[in-house]
Amino acid sequence: MRLSRYFLPTLKEDPAEAEVVSHRLMLRAGLIRQSAAGIYSWLPFGYRALRNIEQIVREEQDLAGAQEMLMPTLQPAELWRESGRYEDYGKELLRIEDRRDRDLLYGPTNEELITDIFRHTVRSHKDLPKMLYHIQWKFRDEMRPRFGVVRGREFLMKDNYSFDLDRAGARRSYNAMFIAYLRTFARMGLKSIPMQADSGPIGGDMSHEFIILAQTGESEVFYQRELEDLDILGETVDYAADLQPLVDRWTGYYAATDEKHDPEACPVPAAELRSGRGIEVGHIFYFGTKYTKSMKAAVQGPDGEAMFPEMGSYGIGISRLVAAIIEACHDEAGIIWPDSVAPYQVGLINLRVDDGECTAAADKLYAALTVAGVSVLYDDRDERAGAKFSTMDLIGLPWQVAVGPRGLKAGVVEVKNRATGAREELAPEAALAKFGG
Amino acid sequence: MRLSRYFLPTLKEDPAEAEVVSHRLMLRAGLIRQSAAGIYSWLPFGYRALRNIEQIVREEQDLAGAQEMLMPTLQPAELWRESGRYEDYGKELLRIEDRRDRDLLYGPTNEELITDIFRHTVRSHKDLPKMLYHIQWKFRDEMRPRFGVVRGREFLMKDNYSFDLDRAGARRSYNAMFIAYLRTFARMGLKSIPMQADSGPIGGDMSHEFIILAQTGESEVFYQRELEDLDILGETVDYAADLQPLVDRWTGYYAATDEKHDPEACPVPAAELRSGRGIEVGHIFYFGTKYTKSMKAAVQGPDGEAMFPEMGSYGIGISRLVAAIIEACHDEAGIIWPDSVAPYQVGLINLRVDDGECTAAADKLYAALTVAGVSVLYDDRDERAGAKFSTMDLIGLPWQVAVGPRGLKAGVVEVKNRATGAREELAPEAALAKFGG
Repeated sequence: MRLSRYFLPTLKEDPAEAEVVSHRLMLRAGLIRQSAAGIYSWLPFGYRALRNIEQIVREEQDLAGAQEMLMPTLQPAELWRESGRYEDYGKELLRIEDRRDRDLLYGPTNEELITDIFRHTVRSHKDLPKMLYHIQWKFRDEMRPRFGVVRGREFLMKDNYSFDLDRAGARRSYNAMFIAYLRTFARMGLKSIPMQADSGPIGGDMSHEFIILAQTGESEVFYQRELEDLDILGETVDYAADLQPLVDRWTGYYAATDEKHDPEACPVPAAELRSGRGIEVGHIFYFGTKYTKSMKAAVQGPDGEAMFPEMGSYGIGISRLVAAIIEACHDEAGIIWPDSVAPYQVGLINLRVDDGECTAAADKLYAALTVAGVSVLYDDRDERAGAKFSTMDLIGLPWQVAVGPRGLKAGVVEVKNRATGAREELAPEAALAKFGG
Repeated sequence: MRLSRYFLPTLKEDPAEAEVVSHRLMLRAGLIRQSAAGIYSWLPFGYRALRNIEQIVREEQDLAGAQEMLMPTLQPAELWRESGRYEDYGKELLRIEDRRDRDLLYGPTNEELITDIFRHTVRSHKDLPKMLYHIQWKFRDEMRPRFGVVRGREFLMKDNYSFDLDRAGARRSYNAMFIAYLRTFARMGLKSIPMQADSGPIGGDMSHEFIILAQTGESEVFYQRELEDLDILGETVDYAADLQPLVDRWTGYYAATDEKHDPEACPVPAAELRSGRGIEVGHIFYFGTKYTKSMKAAVQGPDGEAMFPEMGSYGIGISRLVAAIIEACHDEAGIIWPDSVAPYQVGLINLRVDDGECTAAADKLYAALTVAGVSVLYDDRDERAGAKFSTMDLIGLPWQVAVGPRGLKAGVVEVKNRATGAREELAPEAALAKFGG
């Protein structure tokens, strides 16, 4: 994509309303624009990051055996009356009346709707287990939306719902999601730490929040040093096998948010305890037969008896992840995208658009990289070199390739790694080869 | 995907509420389920078709030079008050009040919102032209939602908005979309015919509806015979060149919906006139400075003066297209998916799951096809052969491959083309090779 044609409205100044670094950088680098309080439009550059994140989430859900579908944003209120949540949910539930005075609501979550679909379509224990997920916009009418998409009102979430015949099956589904979440965040270049969370009235140990470590994170977290060294992508995961030993390896170490951490009662010696800041990006939760019973979603068991499936739900905040990644990956100059989610892999800079030779060389490299399947944002604007370098640092693509008259005389272009700052001079062909061309 | 694990709730009986064939087949083949009047959940099988269609639309929009972004579903009412449409739009506009008594609405279209983004980010004529599109759920509070997703309330639409400096530029954008639409529908295996539509108060010839021919379509259309022979995919399209001659080739022939067709005044001799039924799936529309002027979205022109960009909008009903494709592509037995949008390419049938050899052969073919990157839905259920063939015909995958004990003794499997009904017996390796394995 040529930057001269691209819709990338960057800002020179820090926007006054942005309190946190991710919000500031998302506005400055032209990722989003607020359309109403807590409601954002995703501009082309931000939308590419959002879709890359969404795709990683999707691939890992599919790999773990979940099936993608799509529920609507609006739901009939009657389902929430059945479960008892229509009144309980409070003012964060956006209630809507249609032209025929029927009560609708903008779904903040989908337990009722998926249970409704399930009870009308699944009849037999033989159809279980099932894990069904969707990636859809949700709405939570926050009293004080803030921090950009970290706490927005309209937000994109992946929510998955599992249906199993018994608690042992529910644990298998839970474990599959536990591992899938570790893999999902690791693939985004993030260090995630699962922390035991309140499990509600059911009790038990099947509720975890996944926290991303980020210096500028919203809350303080405490965890055992060893968790930093665990690497899920180094493991061979077989979702058909028993995942409990692998899950136990993570849950065997101490980890707690500041709300739960009690320094007096902490079982870990001070030398082994780490503290840091983090952002919650996922939550997995087993809640048994709460919805299947209240909504009468029974299946026929092996002996013909009615059985109420055990459910769990598993959420990932996809729009929030864009901000979380930026909180975890940035410096003074701007964003530093991990490769896997970067909107483009390479930022190509033509340092002198008024120099015919320089422009020809940059155009040629742009064409060659594009043909090779490398995603390139090509700064072909008539701007000063300094402004171009600043923009590239701000928008944070993993690699920068600068083409200028001086380098070309020596037969080289300059390649810079955004994360490390390391630079090297390469012949254009070598730069092309470096990126797989 | 193994059908024994897949969430595909097919129906044996025709649902009483379905008046048109696409609605009936979408319910029977487990594509969708109604969650409220005119509001549907997309089950995994239907969602795959929806996403395939969305991807073709996206690729053709990008090819034509449009840039993808994403606007939210909810919009502030104040923007619609500015344009004057808040009152004008009537009861189809779903009005919402949030917890702080602010007026929101569920966007049925996005002219106001994109113009608002534009006026805050684009300052100079040098930033034009721009074509910005998104693929997002919309809501239109139909008094009588019917025909399934053909006239639903919550629907998925691609809408694109072009901004140009002058009318000549607007025509270039319009022409690019005209050609992109022809290509988009042709890639889905559909015959689309552009028909001149009302252009509103501006007048002129820049408003076309794109109608898909389908025997069971909602309205009657009339067109010159030659339009059937035109093939946009046989043309080399260069979006950087002048597209007017190519557009003229299509618009040079007569085409009209029954509302506009006057047999007395029709310029085409009867022998050249065709009539048929069709479904509207797209609309492209030039509306000049209607929104840029009312919302004060000026840019600085070449001489420093304020200029109001000329706009057009270009919509494709993506969820509606799933139904339109089924209206155009089905027979008595069920759906006949065009290859490019089929949820899976191959339906593999194990005719005897209780036969070890047969199951081993089917499993092996399933694994080999999957490794070769062919998308396969594998019927490994313990069901009668007749039921399996009926299900496969109903769900309409382009190819069926049946593996049974009798064929295996002769060293063959049976390959059937769903569209033509043609069958051939092939060695498993030859079947694999046929699908690119």
